[in-house]
Parts: sequence; C-alpha cells; structure tokens
Amino acid sequence: MFLVLGSTGYVGKYFLKYISSLGEDVRGLSRVDFDYTDESKLVSLLKDEKPKFLVNAAGYTGKPNVDACEANKAECLLGNSVLPGKIRNACEEVGVSWGHVSSGCIYSGKKLSGDGWDEQDEPNFSFRNGPCSFYSGSKALGEEVLDGAENCYIWRLRIPFNDEKNPRNYLQKLLNYDSLLDAENSISHIDDYVKSCIDSFTQECEPGIYNLVNVGSITTRQVVNWIVEEGISNRKFKFFENEKDFMERAAIAPRSNCVMDTRKSESCGIGLRPVEEAVRESLRKMKQCALL
Amino acid sequence: MFLVLGSTGYVGKYFLKYISSLGEDVRGLSRVDFDYTDESKLVSLLKDEKPKFLVNAAGYTGKPNVDACEANKAECLLGNSVLPGKIRNACEEVGVSWGHVSSGCIYSGKKLSGDGWDEQDEPNFSFRNGPCSFYSGSKALGEEVLDGAENCYIWRLRIPFNDEKNPRNYLQKLLNYDSLLDAENSISHIDDYVKSCIDSFTQECEPGIYNLVNVGSITTRQVVNWIVEEGISNRKFKFFENEKDFMERAAIAPRSNCVMDTRKSESCGIGLRPVEEAVRESLRKMKQCALL
Repeated sequence: MFLVLGSTGYVGKYFLKYISSLGEDVRGLSRVDFDYTDESKLVSLLKDEKPKFLVNAAGYTGKPNVDACEANKAECLLGNSVLPGKIRNACEEVGVSWGHVSSGCIYSGKKLSGDGWDEQDEPNFSFRNGPCSFYSGSKALGEEVLDGAENCYIWRLRIPFNDEKNPRNYLQKLLNYDSLLDAENSISHIDDYVKSCIDSFTQECEPGIYNLVNVGSITTRQVVNWIVEEGISNRKFKFFENEKDFMERAAIAPRSNCVMDTRKSESCGIGLRPVEEAVRESLRKMKQCALL
Repeated sequence: MFLVLGSTGYVGKYFLKYISSLGEDVRGLSRVDFDYTDESKLVSLLKDEKPKFLVNAAGYTGKPNVDACEANKAECLLGNSVLPGKIRNACEEVGVSWGHVSSGCIYSGKKLSGDGWDEQDEPNFSFRNGPCSFYSGSKALGEEVLDGAENCYIWRLRIPFNDEKNPRNYLQKLLNYDSLLDAENSISHIDDYVKSCIDSFTQECEPGIYNLVNVGSITTRQVVNWIVEEGISNRKFKFFENEKDFMERAAIAPRSNCVMDTRKSESCGIGLRPVEEAVRESLRKMKQCALL
C-alpha cells in the first residue's frame, strides 16, 4: 500500500490518481483527517498500515500565491520545514521508504557557465543565501532538515503545469494574469513529475535529491509565443518592464526564477520529456477540451 | 492571573517563582501537560482562564548544549520558530498581552564603533546572516515570526547565571569545563532578567524588543579572575588557543559571542545592574552556601 500525505492538495491529488492508475493500493490522508504533524500518531499509523512507500505531498504554499507565506510564517515553517522532519523521524523509526515533494524555488538564476543548478549545489535563494521569499526559505530549511535521511527521496518540482483547469496550472496563470514577468525558468509537467517520482522508487534509484523538471528551460515570452502559435489566444500579452517593475506593482516577496540541471534524473532513467514537447501537448489538449 | 508556558524549564521555573513572590496568582504549563503548539487549544485556554499576561518560556535549547539542535532540527524549529507564531496568533485573537523569552545569541561580536548591538540592529548570527548555529537561526526566525506582533514583549536573554546549582548556570559551567574559550560577552543574571521582564509589563513599557543583560560586558578571563579573587577556586584554568581550536576540540556548531547594548532597557527603567556587581554577588553567595 502507498500512503500519500497531503492528498487533497494540488500535487497530492495527482499522486493519488497516478498510483491508482498503476493498479496499486493507495491511501490518501489530509491534515484535516489526521494530524501527521504529531510524530507519535504517525509512527502508530505506519506500524498499523505498513505502507511500502509514503509520499509527503503536504506543505504550505500560500493562497493565492507565495506572498501569503510572508503573513503566515509559523504555518509556513510548520508545513515546509518541521513536518518533513517529523515524517523523517517516523519513517526512520518504522523503516518505511518515502519521498518528499520539494521545490526548485530554492535557487535563483543559473550558473555562470550557463548550466542549471544541479543537486549538489547549495541553494542560493534561501535564508542562508538570501534574499529569498519566506516560502523558499522554508522549503530550503525543509531540505536541510532531511539532510542524511535514510531511504528518502527529495523530489524537486518547479512551476507545475499541464492541460487541466486549475489556478495552480502555470499555463492558466499566464492566460489570466494582466501583466507577465519575462524570466527564464525550468518548469514541471505535473503528470510527468508524479510519474518520475514514483518511478524513482519502483526503479530503485538511489535515494537522495532529484531535480524533476522537463528537460530544457523556457522564457515567459517563448511560452506566450507557443500559446499564440497553438491558437489558444491571440490576445496581446503585456509584460512588466523588469523585475523591479514587477516587484513594485504585483509582488510582496521576491520570486525565484531559475534553471535546473536535469542530468541526474535523466541518467537514472527518470528524466522528464523536453519542455517544449510537454508545453505544446498541454496547449493542444487545452484547445481540444475548450478549457479556456 | 499570569500564565507561564514552559514552566518546568530552566527559565520558566524562575518566572513561576518570581511571579509568586509578588503575591500574584500564577499558573504554569509544560508541554507534557498541555500541547500549546495546538493553536485552537491555546485559544480555548486563554478564553477560559483570561490571564492578564502570558509568558512564553518554552523553547528548544538542546541538551547538554546547543550542538544537540543540529541533530534535532525539526524539534528546534517547532519550539523556537513555530511555537512563538502560534502563541502570537492565539494571544492576538483573544487579546492577551504577552512576553517571549528570546535570546541575544542571534548576534556575534560587537559594532565596529565598539558599542554593543541594539534592538534596531538586524541579527548577524542567523540563517539570513550566517554562519550561525541551527539554534541561533531558529531563535532569529522566531523573532521574525513575531515582527509586528500586538502587545508582545520580546525579552532577549544572554548566558544566564546566578548563585544556584544548575548545569545551565554559566558560573557553574566555567568551574566544570576542562578548557575555556576566552571571549567577550554580555550575560544575564537570571533573577535580574526575570524581574526586568515582568517589570516591562507592570511598568507599562512600550511592547517590543528589549536586550535584558547586565550592564557592561565580561571576558571569560575576567570572570575567572573574579572566581579566584572571591576565593571560589584556585585551580589553574585552561583556555583553548582560539576559536578554531575550540571548534575543533569541543564544538559542532559555531557559538555566538556578543556584546549587547542595554541603553533601551535602562532608559525604560528596567535595566539590569552592572555585570561585575551581579557576578561577584553570585560568587559570594555560592561560596557562603558551599554549593561548589
């Protein structure tokens, strides 16, 4: 049995759906049903249920966006930094393998060489290497809390998208925002991501950190061009002049924009497909389903 | 009624004792009896008990010393960063004034001018301005979580001491350690500290941050000289060559050594007495009581 914590959240739902689709037994828990921040309760649950794998898709992302984390710092730290440590302790005590939904938002930019950040690189958009948003700081602390964890996968997601209607879907965001910030980013097709996460366990990759983003990177202007080319919208997209203009007009906390190196996940056979292919396929499906 | 959270801890016990000595009604709670990390439970308690003031003396310090925080990061963040935020939320919801036991260990050294760090200075021994120990990082985050809190006192303690037998007592530590690190520090007589904390509320000082350390600073060698002068010990105290030697031989996490400015607390009438007077008095009492 697979156990998914945070199963009613955006990412958790995709895990439930994907694991079920494999014909595997899966149980989802949300914090409303079960307080998994209580380590001893979690230990009892693991002993009773004996899951073969646990997915931690629980966390605090802030609604409608990460700016909300600045006003809810305690909740943000509890969900993103403390909870992973509690789960680690419980899983290590009972001997359960598990994976944690982390984020690439603990980086900014790319290396001077032009390469993306790899799994060995220290976060550079964190409390220890600021500036950062409180959200990014809390996610980086969460990885620090998991340093040296046994049989633990740390799966880094970046800017999820696919073809489905959801306010968290990056493609939908681009279509809805008044003005856009042009920036270069790695992004993750959420279904690709979830499959790679589960594959890391079933294909017996070595536990540790994995950047799970589609191969390559995008700029906002490129994606907007694809949106126009695929006939989704012919609206004239407006852009902020620069990051300063964006920060002044639309944001409270600084945002992470970064490129991530995917060579480790590719070499383990769990790489995601090229980003343009994943984005264009999503756009075509969106058009077919008239989800716009 | 005064409510003290963390009342069985080293600092909490002194709060209980001092508040009782004023003839005030006081109730102490420890996390074993009552899970005050549960915000809704805490709100109910505050509504039922209607305390006129709450003291948060709960936190995670690590045993036998702060190095233990490096191995218990989730517990450390929960106790020092998340819990203050939960208490803030509960106190603001119910309208209870309160004070938080913070620490001066979020600073290192002193200003270039030779002055100590004051309440306006950004921490320089924190995750945001490293290096730091995980303990110091978590305490600095705790203050960040309390930024802008209503009717909240943030009382910074540094290296507690007095004349009583306790492994946390700085004077006892100096007598017990094999080798000492010579460093300049502000330190707090714990009874002076607790009195100043409660005075800040009863004397209606403006809520906010207060450095509550004895006026002046000490070096380890000075205190050792006073120990010899007061006839407590004539042992030959050994010193580490320097901080590097100390880190290599005795510590895992870097330690904060710092001097703090006391002008704000003095000008509000809640300043602690001069440090030499407080140390020498403690040493004399220790000698009288043969606590050695």
